Amino acid sequence: MELWFSEDFSGGSRFGARVTQVVASHKSEFQQIDILATEVFGKMLVIDGKVQACEMDEFVYHEMLTHPALLSHPNPRKVLVAGGGDGGTVRECLKHSCVQEVTLVEIDRMVIELCQTHMPGLASRLSEDSRVRVAPDDASKIIQQARNMDVILVDSSDPVGPSEALFQPEFFQELHTALSEDGITCLQAGSPFLGPEQVVKMALDLKKFFPVVHLLTIPVPSYPGGTWCLALASKADWNPRGDSGQLIRQRFQDRGLTDQTKYLTKDMLGPCFEVPAFLMSIFRREQQAVAR
Amino acid sequence: MELWFSEDFSGGSRFGARVTQVVASHKSEFQQIDILATEVFGKMLVIDGKVQACEMDEFVYHEMLTHPALLSHPNPRKVLVAGGGDGGTVRECLKHSCVQEVTLVEIDRMVIELCQTHMPGLASRLSEDSRVRVAPDDASKIIQQARNMDVILVDSSDPVGPSEALFQPEFFQELHTALSEDGITCLQAGSPFLGPEQVVKMALDLKKFFPVVHLLTIPVPSYPGGTWCLALASKADWNPRGDSGQLIRQRFQDRGLTDQTKYLTKDMLGPCFEVPAFLMSIFRREQQAVAR
Repeated sequence: MELWFSEDFSGGSRFGARVTQVVASHKSEFQQIDILATEVFGKMLVIDGKVQACEMDEFVYHEMLTHPALLSHPNPRKVLVAGGGDGGTVRECLKHSCVQEVTLVEIDRMVIELCQTHMPGLASRLSEDSRVRVAPDDASKIIQQARNMDVILVDSSDPVGPSEALFQPEFFQELHTALSEDGITCLQAGSPFLGPEQVVKMALDLKKFFPVVHLLTIPVPSYPGGTWCLALASKADWNPRGDSGQLIRQRFQDRGLTDQTKYLTKDMLGPCFEVPAFLMSIFRREQQAVAR
Repeated sequence: MELWFSEDFSGGSRFGARVTQVVASHKSEFQQIDILATEVFGKMLVIDGKVQACEMDEFVYHEMLTHPALLSHPNPRKVLVAGGGDGGTVRECLKHSCVQEVTLVEIDRMVIELCQTHMPGLASRLSEDSRVRVAPDDASKIIQQARNMDVILVDSSDPVGPSEALFQPEFFQELHTALSEDGITCLQAGSPFLGPEQVVKMALDLKKFFPVVHLLTIPVPSYPGGTWCLALASKADWNPRGDSGQLIRQRFQDRGLTDQTKYLTKDMLGPCFEVPAFLMSIFRREQQAVAR
């Protein structure tokens, strides 16, 4: 028997992976959670039919959601991770020795438990490191109450179901309030090829609350379109192309990240902020439309 | 009826696109050629079941195969394009006013004819610009005889069937002989996620003949793994991270490429040469194995 997992996007594009074993399949209070063993992508966490993380390429997404944000902050001590029950983002945060406390807010405890059992490469640090606090709660509710966070990483699923609120301007305002004076947030922002308008809308909505917003473009073979966008928004003023770019690269070394990453290199910390021309022109078009 | 095109890679990964119309389907002397209209990817050229180019993202591949190479050369006049009957690479070459002659060597005339009829956005320049010469021949044979080329772009399909010879070290030696003293070549080099060993092997094989070899990593949603590698090899010594990087960016402006590209920006010309950490470590491992 041949077993294939398949995920459709926008009704016209499809990603498929050959499955060697259905490792776990559960319906939680919130969603359908499956863990599949695949031939090419390793074990794969699938929620409501959409790939969230797979062993073969999760390092790209988790490193890039975490390190550019944490390195852009001079001294991140308190970090909040919203969503991301697979543990990959928390694992990356713990690589910065200056980090004293990582709070993981994941609405669905079953995601955490299944990943701890079946994908320990991602989730084992959730119970092994005393700096980690797990809050099984609604991220948007917790962020409403949080204050003085240095970094908030929004490791959400797509803007449907439990994650929908995490893509609204009201949530971006709450993020701004929950962050310290020089706080920084990084969020998943969608597909630049298959949904560029959504990516641009998110960046422009963030711009209403944060003086500095940058897009990061990263390869993720198991996500629709193969390339994904992250949005980084900061309350303090800095520019990865100038002196602050040099500073970020220096911190990569100072915080001992050399040889600790599988995708990111020091020299990629400037480049990862470069945005393709077609995305920039959608930006300019939308900004002009707003200005009119 | 729902019609889906689907391409499998390594037996365990699948790319799919919903087809609205089979525009053309022909068996040539060399291969099966199909042109499909799709919902998300625009029209798509498929050869022997593998996507070669589609309207939605062809610009990334063709711009990146062409411009970093041509911009790395001080004055490219004679360019040879091996393969690439869809015309996209030739179209990009013609954007450099210094280019006096582009020879397209495509073994399969039917590819050219079908693209001229159905994908004019790629192929129309093949008959409209007097600088273009089309040679319906075997690329490896023509390159054996060619001399004093400034740039050779190898726009091949995968290393099976008619393109197999274009991935062999013997061919790289012939490329070296066919190029002028400061000549440069750029070749498609495979998938960094699904076939990193093949990418590294190609770069190391090129290193046997060329003093400077760089990998470029680019997003191509319709190719397996969503990200693709190109290998750029040069007979003259230069480094995109140093002064020559600055020079390349300057040439982007001087040759009038600003606003002529949909993916590449001037600021991306340094960044596109950064290689992910996992690919670099395969490199180091292989180089040590050779040194032993």
